[in-house]
Amino acid sequence: MADEKVSNKRIIFKDYVTGFPKDDDMILTSSDIELKAPSGSAAVLIKNLYLSCDPYMRGKMSKPGVQSYTAAFTPGSVITGYGVGRVVDSGHPNFQAGDLVWGITGWEEYSLIKAPEGLIKIKYTDVPLSYYTGIFGMPGLTAYVGFNELSSPKKGETVFVSAASGAVGQLVGQFAKLIGCYVVGSAGSQEKVDLLKSKFGFDDAFNYKEEHDLNAALKRHFPDGIDIYFENVGGAMLDAVLLNMRNHGRIAVCGMISQYNLTVKDAVHNLMCLVSKRIRMQGFIEPDHKHLYPQFLELAIQHIREGRLVYVEDVAEGLEKAPSALIGLFSGRNVGKQVVRVAQE
Amino acid sequence: MADEKVSNKRIIFKDYVTGFPKDDDMILTSSDIELKAPSGSAAVLIKNLYLSCDPYMRGKMSKPGVQSYTAAFTPGSVITGYGVGRVVDSGHPNFQAGDLVWGITGWEEYSLIKAPEGLIKIKYTDVPLSYYTGIFGMPGLTAYVGFNELSSPKKGETVFVSAASGAVGQLVGQFAKLIGCYVVGSAGSQEKVDLLKSKFGFDDAFNYKEEHDLNAALKRHFPDGIDIYFENVGGAMLDAVLLNMRNHGRIAVCGMISQYNLTVKDAVHNLMCLVSKRIRMQGFIEPDHKHLYPQFLELAIQHIREGRLVYVEDVAEGLEKAPSALIGLFSGRNVGKQVVRVAQE
Repeated sequence: MADEKVSNKRIIFKDYVTGFPKDDDMILTSSDIELKAPSGSAAVLIKNLYLSCDPYMRGKMSKPGVQSYTAAFTPGSVITGYGVGRVVDSGHPNFQAGDLVWGITGWEEYSLIKAPEGLIKIKYTDVPLSYYTGIFGMPGLTAYVGFNELSSPKKGETVFVSAASGAVGQLVGQFAKLIGCYVVGSAGSQEKVDLLKSKFGFDDAFNYKEEHDLNAALKRHFPDGIDIYFENVGGAMLDAVLLNMRNHGRIAVCGMISQYNLTVKDAVHNLMCLVSKRIRMQGFIEPDHKHLYPQFLELAIQHIREGRLVYVEDVAEGLEKAPSALIGLFSGRNVGKQVVRVAQE
Repeated sequence: MADEKVSNKRIIFKDYVTGFPKDDDMILTSSDIELKAPSGSAAVLIKNLYLSCDPYMRGKMSKPGVQSYTAAFTPGSVITGYGVGRVVDSGHPNFQAGDLVWGITGWEEYSLIKAPEGLIKIKYTDVPLSYYTGIFGMPGLTAYVGFNELSSPKKGETVFVSAASGAVGQLVGQFAKLIGCYVVGSAGSQEKVDLLKSKFGFDDAFNYKEEHDLNAALKRHFPDGIDIYFENVGGAMLDAVLLNMRNHGRIAVCGMISQYNLTVKDAVHNLMCLVSKRIRMQGFIEPDHKHLYPQFLELAIQHIREGRLVYVEDVAEGLEKAPSALIGLFSGRNVGKQVVRVAQE
C-alpha cells in the first residue's frame, strides 16, 4: 500500500523563451508518483484541483535577468505557479489529509510540496474553490494592495484601469466603485468592454484596439484628467496616460503585459509629466504584502456574499489545456481570470 | 520728487521658443520707472540685486502646453524668475524701504511687485545675499524636500545624483553625506567631477560625457545597486539608472534638463524595473512644499556657519549677461549655481 504509485501527468518547461511563448515551449509528460509524503519529511502531497495562469509567469520563462523578480523556471522541470489543491498526505503538523490549500504548486496532477509553509489553508468554501487562484488569491491581494493601499484613493476621484477585465483589473474597478470613484477601463474587445460596464459597474470603458489615438481616447473619457492609473500594460498606453494625469496623480505599477514578449521594450517619452504634475509612480509585487491577506480576505468574502463584488473566470478544462491557456493571456484570448481545472472535486 | 523717473534696463522675452533657446530670444531694452509704489496700492518697488538662472525657466519659454507646470512667459514682457532685491518703496504693511527680500521678480534693474505676499524677508545676512537664489532659496528647498523628505534616506544607503555640481545636485550630495549615505555624482566635465569629490565630499563622481555605456558606468560605481536616485537629467541616464536600482529603491524626480530642448523626448525603455524592483518614482516641485522653508532655513544656516555645508556659485556680472547665463545651463557651461549680479550693494 505504501509503495503504490499512480500516473502523474505533468507540464514540463522545455527551455528559455525569447519573444512570444508557444504551446510547445511546454510539454505534457507523465511519470509515476507515490501518493504520500516521504516518511520523516515535513512535505505535503497534494492533489491539484485548479491551476492559475498569470502574466508574471512569462518573466519566469526568460533566461534569468535583471528585469525578473522571481526565479526563472528550470528547463526540463515542471512549470510552477499558484494553484488550489487538496492534501492527500502530510508530514507537516500544520496540514492533514483532506485539507484544502492554495499557494505555489506544480502544473501536474499531484505535487509534492517540500516546503509547505507557504501554503494557505482555505477558510471559506461557500465560494468556488477556483476563486483562490483569483479574487481570494494573488490577483485579489494584488488589486487590493495596489489600489486601496498604495494609491490613496478618495471618493470622487477619477480612476483608469488598463487590462480592466483581467484577473486584477476587474477587481480594481470594483474596489474603486466601492470607494465612490469614477472608473473607466480599457480592454481589447467589445465583449470585454460590455462586461466592464454591465457586469463590473465601470462608469465607462473602451476597446483600445479600436482607438488610433490613445491620448484622444483618454481625453474623451477624462476631460478633467486622471487621478489614479492602475497600470497593467505599459508602453504606448502609459505614455498616453502620463499626458492625461492630474496634478498629484498616482500610478500603481502592477505589471506591463504589453511588454513581456518584447526583446526591446517600447519607448516611453512623457516622463517629464511626473515633475510637472507631481505624480507618484509606485511599482509593487504582491508577495511583499502578504501580511495584509487576512484583512483582505475578510473584506472580500463579505463583499462577495452580499453581492457587492463579482468575479468572472475563464476556465480551461484539463491539465493539457494549461499551456494554451497561459499563452492566450498575451493575446487577450481570456475573458476574465484564466484558470485551469485539473480535477473535479 | 514723487514723479522722478529713472532708467530701467530690462530683458524682454521675444517669443515662444522651439528647441534650444538663443541669446536673441531675450532682448535688452530700457524704459523709465518711477521709484515708488503707486499710492493706495499694496505693491512693493524693489531694486534687484541678484537674479537666478534656473532650468525650469526653459519650460516657460515654450508655448503653453501640457508638460509645463508654470505659466509661460508672455512674449513682449519682461522675463520673470527668482531674485534677491532691496525694497525701495512699499505700499504693503509687511515690507518697508530698506528690507532685503527674495522671491519672484523681473529681469530688470527695478521691479514693481504688485502682489508682494510671495516675497520672503531675508533673515540672515552673514552669508552672501546671492545664496538666497540658491542654497537658501528655491534650489536649496528643492534639494531638501526631494532628498530628505521624499526619498526616505537611511544611513548606509547608496545615492546617485545626476547634474551633481548644479544648484540642486551639489546640495543633495552634501545632505546625503550628512545622513551617512554613500554618494556618487555625475557631471559633464573633469573640472566638475573634481569639484564633486574635493569640495562637496562626494565619495566618487564621473563625467557622463566620457562614458559610452552609462549602464556599465553605474555598475562600476554601484556594484550592489542604487537605493536612491535624485533625478535631474532624464533620458538615457534614467534608463541606465533603472537597470541599476536596488529593490525598494526611490527616485525623486526633480527635473530632466537633458529633455527640455527636445521636441520629441528621449525614449525610456526600462520602466518594467519599477515593478520587478518595487521602485517608487516621485515627481515634485518646490512650491508645493514652501511650508517647510522655515525649518529648512534654520538647518541650512547652521550647517553653513559650522562649515558642514558649502555652496559654489557661478556669478555673471551685469543684467546684460543674464540671457547667455540662462542659456549656458543647457550646455552645462556653468560651474555651480548660476546667478546674475545686477547691482552691487
